Amino acid sequence: MAEAVETMDGWYVLHDLRKVDWGKWKAASEEKRQAALTEFRAHYLTWDENEKKEEGSYGIFHIVGQKADLMITLLRPTVDEILTAETLLNKSSLAEFLIPAESYMSVVELSKYRPAQDGVDPETLPETQKRLKPILEKWDYVSFYPMSRKRDGEDNWYTLEKGTRGKLLYEHSITGRKYGNEVKQIITGSTGFDEWEWGVTLFAHDYLQLKKIVYEMRYDTATARYGLFGDFYTGKTLTFEALEELLAI
Amino acid sequence: MAEAVETMDGWYVLHDLRKVDWGKWKAASEEKRQAALTEFRAHYLTWDENEKKEEGSYGIFHIVGQKADLMITLLRPTVDEILTAETLLNKSSLAEFLIPAESYMSVVELSKYRPAQDGVDPETLPETQKRLKPILEKWDYVSFYPMSRKRDGEDNWYTLEKGTRGKLLYEHSITGRKYGNEVKQIITGSTGFDEWEWGVTLFAHDYLQLKKIVYEMRYDTATARYGLFGDFYTGKTLTFEALEELLAI
Amino acid sequence: MAEAVETMDGWYVLHDLRKVDWGKWKAASEEKRQAALTEFRAHYLTWDENEKKEEGSYGIFHIVGQKADLMITLLRPTVDEILTAETLLNKSSLAEFLIPAESYMSVVELSKYRPAQDGVDPETLPETQKRLKPILEKWDYVSFYPMSRKRDGEDNWYTLEKGTRGKLLYEHSITGRKYGNEVKQIITGSTGFDEWEWGVTLFAHDYLQLKKIVYEMRYDTATARYGLFGDFYTGKTLTFEALEELLAI
Amino acid sequence: MAEAVETMDGWYVLHDLRKVDWGKWKAASEEKRQAALTEFRAHYLTWDENEKKEEGSYGIFHIVGQKADLMITLLRPTVDEILTAETLLNKSSLAEFLIPAESYMSVVELSKYRPAQDGVDPETLPETQKRLKPILEKWDYVSFYPMSRKRDGEDNWYTLEKGTRGKLLYEHSITGRKYGNEVKQIITGSTGFDEWEWGVTLFAHDYLQLKKIVYEMRYDTATARYGLFGDFYTGKTLTFEALEELLAI
Amino acid sequence: MAEAVETMDGWYVLHDLRKVDWGKWKAASEEKRQAALTEFRAHYLTWDENEKKEEGSYGIFHIVGQKADLMITLLRPTVDEILTAETLLNKSSLAEFLIPAESYMSVVELSKYRPAQDGVDPETLPETQKRLKPILEKWDYVSFYPMSRKRDGEDNWYTLEKGTRGKLLYEHSITGRKYGNEVKQIITGSTGFDEWEWGVTLFAHDYLQLKKIVYEMRYDTATARYGLFGDFYTGKTLTFEALEELLAI
Repeated sequence: MAEAVETMDGWYVLHDLRKVDWGKWKAASEEKRQAALTEFRAHYLTWDENEKKEEGSYGIFHIVGQKADLMITLLRPTVDEILTAETLLNKSSLAEFLIPAESYMSVVELSKYRPAQDGVDPETLPETQKRLKPILEKWDYVSFYPMSRKRDGEDNWYTLEKGTRGKLLYEHSITGRKYGNEVKQIITGSTGFDEWEWGVTLFAHDYLQLKKIVYEMRYDTATARYGLFGDFYTGKTLTFEALEELLAI
Repeated sequence: MAEAVETMDGWYVLHDLRKVDWGKWKAASEEKRQAALTEFRAHYLTWDENEKKEEGSYGIFHIVGQKADLMITLLRPTVDEILTAETLLNKSSLAEFLIPAESYMSVVELSKYRPAQDGVDPETLPETQKRLKPILEKWDYVSFYPMSRKRDGEDNWYTLEKGTRGKLLYEHSITGRKYGNEVKQIITGSTGFDEWEWGVTLFAHDYLQLKKIVYEMRYDTATARYGLFGDFYTGKTLTFEALEELLAI
Repeated sequence: MAEAVETMDGWYVLHDLRKVDWGKWKAASEEKRQAALTEFRAHYLTWDENEKKEEGSYGIFHIVGQKADLMITLLRPTVDEILTAETLLNKSSLAEFLIPAESYMSVVELSKYRPAQDGVDPETLPETQKRLKPILEKWDYVSFYPMSRKRDGEDNWYTLEKGTRGKLLYEHSITGRKYGNEVKQIITGSTGFDEWEWGVTLFAHDYLQLKKIVYEMRYDTATARYGLFGDFYTGKTLTFEALEELLAI
Repeated sequence: MAEAVETMDGWYVLHDLRKVDWGKWKAASEEKRQAALTEFRAHYLTWDENEKKEEGSYGIFHIVGQKADLMITLLRPTVDEILTAETLLNKSSLAEFLIPAESYMSVVELSKYRPAQDGVDPETLPETQKRLKPILEKWDYVSFYPMSRKRDGEDNWYTLEKGTRGKLLYEHSITGRKYGNEVKQIITGSTGFDEWEWGVTLFAHDYLQLKKIVYEMRYDTATARYGLFGDFYTGKTLTFEALEELLAI
Repeated sequence: MAEAVETMDGWYVLHDLRKVDWGKWKAASEEKRQAALTEFRAHYLTWDENEKKEEGSYGIFHIVGQKADLMITLLRPTVDEILTAETLLNKSSLAEFLIPAESYMSVVELSKYRPAQDGVDPETLPETQKRLKPILEKWDYVSFYPMSRKRDGEDNWYTLEKGTRGKLLYEHSITGRKYGNEVKQIITGSTGFDEWEWGVTLFAHDYLQLKKIVYEMRYDTATARYGLFGDFYTGKTLTFEALEELLAI
């Protein structure tokens, strides 16, 4: 029986993906549409203010393809705040024109594979706290995907020794570091919360880098033998003005 | 051919998950909404009274994400009572605003891996009876997920010797005990009743512990090699007043 | 290449599972509902008469959970009669309030693993004929599930020698016999007819026994290594009066 | 790298499965229903005339269970004719009362596992041409199912030597020949056209034989180790008059 | 840990598949239908003009079977242009009569398995640039399918040495070259963008060749052991006039 790794957990994260019901939206009166956007803007401003106070973070994204049109990502210190924000969204007028497409619940996670240095608990370090409570990059492009580690015959991540897992993840991080300037990533844990074990949220200035990093990492042993992936949701960061333009009829 | 383990079985459990049809709910008249809540409150009071008499138990939960909004968990001594309660719910006015999302039928289960001590059948012990007919904790947070044991090549739980299975489950219980103060769990059996072999219902004061226990247990051999999981449904316990607030328009 | 086993095949069986559209049913006029039940009763009486003449059999069941509300099981000597009965059901007024949930086509099947005794073809024996054309038990509880035999690497039922298969099934039948008084089972074959290779329909006086038998059998090698299961549908036998009560608004 | 086998390909085949929307059909006026049938009859007559000229073939079937009510199978020399026929069906009045359930695109296929005899290309033989452009049997019962060959670890059809594959298929054909009088089969290839690699369409006078042949073949090594199956659609051949009766309200 | 291969990436590609809602389309007024086509024609002309300027490419296809009726394939230099084009389509009047069926996001991809010759970066060559920014063939028939490389026990593409992968792909390309005159293919990468790792879009003058190439390639080791396929969408190239004819009521 392999030793588990301890995790440090930060803000909760809800990725909420919805399709626009274009037919219904177009059929609504300009007044109704405007009211829905005005109301949604109020929520948006709350999210923005909350982020400025560093009490959470958020992102709104335009997703490519038919899987979803919008992804709203909300980070909050407590699940109660996540539930409240989700309920406000569900009750909003705009939601009457959105069709739920997918959602994902997770928590910002760092793992303690490396031994504590000088007896200092890394969780107490300011830099760790900052990584556990991240303000989402407002870079142009986003990718979100869930993943798990395989438990399949010879390829069983959870029966590997902790040291071996740490080494494979270190090797994996080397690949990630090559993209340090191009791609920012947030790893969130969802074991026991949702269908997969982790969520990965990537930000890039250049959309192509979202493919290049995932592609190159696929050759890392940690992924090649032990990675399982859900679907990928990619798209573009939306300001409120860009959202209005997207929904302009 | 491995020896089966005998089970002790208690109250039947139905987990009934539904989404709120927010558009329809909002479009209903205040009068209609109030009537639906009043009627539902009557059912709720019956469940509560039933629990006070220790003739069953119940919980109402607000589920995170789009998978469901509400989970209603009902424990009853007989399947007939489960069917009656489910039918009352289906016929209720509130159900007109709820969309079925998932349901799960199981029965509280304990297994006799340890030999009877002093020839006493453990099923006759008061403490066993209490565990077989549990009153659900009213702790703040809940997680429900179904699971099975693998039967896949070398990783086949059902061809392991009974002693080996018992040892692996004992090891697994050690991990569980570490969370004894943080997490209460109810194991329910569903082999022959529903799609998976077991249901696990966890209660916690701190939502994060619902992740931590499932994550740490993943490294136990019983899980690493033999565990298969369905989807996870997590959320917050609702009093009737909290439910009213959730549904307030 | 392993030798196939010969089967004896009896009456055809259609399991037809439907959900009640409670909203539509409640919204219908009392007159419309009554007319639908009256018409359905006529079909029911035909089925009942048909069973009394031993020209077929039937069962109506109230299924637990959201997977279905009703299961109608019809046994007939020919597929033409199955098609006719299904079409009558589809055209009925009650069907306007039912949502198709699942269906399964199979035929009562016995297999000739044991050599013919004294040169007598077992298919000619009256007791065999009775088992091939069974009148469904009107016991209180029912379970239906489809299953197949694995063909997966080392665990390949269809490459086992006929003698080995026979031995494993004999061992399996020993477990079944322990439940002889508690559970009656009908095995139906569906290779080439439907998605899985067999259907299993169980009847019990005590709902719990439906779990106990399936659970214990999971440790039989025939199941542990070679069994694959679809979803399980369990519930309660309905008389016409009980059906009326279930649908009473 | 194993040598591929060359195929001979004949008429294209579309299996088009639809459910009847019974509620909508019953709610339509007798006049509307009659008009839909009259229009559909015109299409039917075209198909029939086309078959008489041996420029294609067709079948209409009543499918058992909820998976579909109708299967329309059309064979044509070109994909353009298939597309045209499908579009006419989609635009027909009857289609307003049908719900698409499944479709399958393939082409009649024979494979050249045996060496050419006397240097004669088998594709030039009249008997081959007849098999490549088959007129569907108007026998009473039908079964359609798609299948593929496994590529899974040790069980990989596509890494077997051509000679080995030929031998396994010959062995398989022996089983088929036992049913020569009871079952006629048409093998159609769909690699690159649709989800599975082949479609199998069986015709029988006795519905039970559709099960017996598929069941017995499961023990052939070609199937036991290398066969993968989709869902099975079985039912009864419909004349136009029988279709009218099926749809009579 | 195997060495990753570097990719060269060109235009982004969106495959957008939709079903026609024939009932709604037929029920619309001739005026409404004409307006929808006129508006769609304007988009079509923009795509055509864009292609003439070699700033992108496009194709409209009539897909066989119920999976979809139309596939619109758009190639653009940036994801922003893809998002804009997709949004215009979603807001169009024609889209009110189309039901989203499937979509796929990828980017034209070439891989650098062969060493650079004479120190020249192949990406700088005009012929490479032309292949990275391809104008879609207006040949009669099309096939689109997504695929991945297996990571399954012994059959793990991503743990193979780069040289071995290069050799297998070279072998694979030999098969492709045999079809050089019959089939043109565009390989697009989607790792990190969408559910599968690659998309394959094939064009042929003869529909049958779309099957023959995929079938023969299945015996290549690169496919036999390492290929995983999604669903296949095949059909016919539509001019705007052919689209009008398809939609003529």
